[in-house]
Amino acid sequence: MRQPIRQAVTTLSIQTHGQGLVEVTEPIARWLGGQGIATGLLTVFCRHTSASLVIQENADPDVRTDLERFFQRLVAEDPSLYDHTLEGPDDMPAHIRSALTTVQLSIPVVEGRMALGTWQGVYLFEHRRRPHGRQIVLHVLGE
Amino acid sequence: MRQPIRQAVTTLSIQTHGQGLVEVTEPIARWLGGQGIATGLLTVFCRHTSASLVIQENADPDVRTDLERFFQRLVAEDPSLYDHTLEGPDDMPAHIRSALTTVQLSIPVVEGRMALGTWQGVYLFEHRRRPHGRQIVLHVLGE
Amino acid sequence: MRQPIRQAVTTLSIQTHGQGLVEVTEPIARWLGGQGIATGLLTVFCRHTSASLVIQENADPDVRTDLERFFQRLVAEDPSLYDHTLEGPDDMPAHIRSALTTVQLSIPVVEGRMALGTWQGVYLFEHRRRPHGRQIVLHVLGE
Repeated sequence: MRQPIRQAVTTLSIQTHGQGLVEVTEPIARWLGGQGIATGLLTVFCRHTSASLVIQENADPDVRTDLERFFQRLVAEDPSLYDHTLEGPDDMPAHIRSALTTVQLSIPVVEGRMALGTWQGVYLFEHRRRPHGRQIVLHVLGE
Repeated sequence: MRQPIRQAVTTLSIQTHGQGLVEVTEPIARWLGGQGIATGLLTVFCRHTSASLVIQENADPDVRTDLERFFQRLVAEDPSLYDHTLEGPDDMPAHIRSALTTVQLSIPVVEGRMALGTWQGVYLFEHRRRPHGRQIVLHVLGE
Repeated sequence: MRQPIRQAVTTLSIQTHGQGLVEVTEPIARWLGGQGIATGLLTVFCRHTSASLVIQENADPDVRTDLERFFQRLVAEDPSLYDHTLEGPDDMPAHIRSALTTVQLSIPVVEGRMALGTWQGVYLFEHRRRPHGRQIVLHVLGE
């Protein structure tokens, strides 16, 4: 008999090291692998407004550096531009960089794995200057 | 016996007040609360190309103002830059601002509520100068 | 008796023609129409880091041209700005443009169809100068 659709949810804690991308593909894949779901939909959700999620190339590390620099140029850490400066000069730029990327990714699961392309990795994008402990919620629905 | 996964869908009408963020966390939470779903996945979908969705800090209102101003600077309302000007100088910038943010958010549901972080609120981002009636579709799958 | 929730998944191959938007609403709608799902959630996932997805206006073609030009201005193809230049001057800008838009869209299904607004179309956004064969994964959960 066909198994009914079921779901699982967990929260991962990720330590960041100041501004930049932290790859989270592996801890997500490990958790997903333990759920015994062959086909389904995995959702990754970042519970913060000064960190976000991106899928980027996982081959040349220069891609991550170039991406980080682009966002530094695009969203200047210049307090004269913002009213919200109480939490430091990097806080409002962090909120904006988060809005320009995303805090949520849903990825189909095929043959028990995320249907990522060959060169795709999932990254937590820390936008604050200091290291932070960040939470991402993982949810999977499937069978 | 374990309850099977089920789903619900509705459309919310949101009145905007010209360019800026309108918080929609509360009406979404109210609808979700009525569905009796403890664990699942909630999707919010904006049916427009000149309004969008963002998750932003719900504490200091300056964050919203700073975010709005950033998008006004980044995507200038300068008709000389665009061919699509028939619907007004704010229409093409609205489409671009929508593409830079998102029209869709999926948020895990845990213990009957959206798994938002402490400082996260869900906002409809109106990109046109005039007030508009906007539709967002809510969909939840869970048990 | 109520039908249980079920799911389907497929991969579409899309040919692009160099930088610009390729509408994919129709092939997605055709596949969805064949699944016999009245209510549910459709996810579109782009398996690349130099192409992405956007929902944009499907009426005036100038909107697409203006959007493409905006991204060309915002993310310059200037090799002096990037370290990652081995794959050509358009590769790193492509990765950044992909991060600024999204590689994933989830759209509620209502009455057997995507709950898109009247003016919304789904587009694959090619960011490389040359034509490419691109893969998008479609996943639907519903009943």
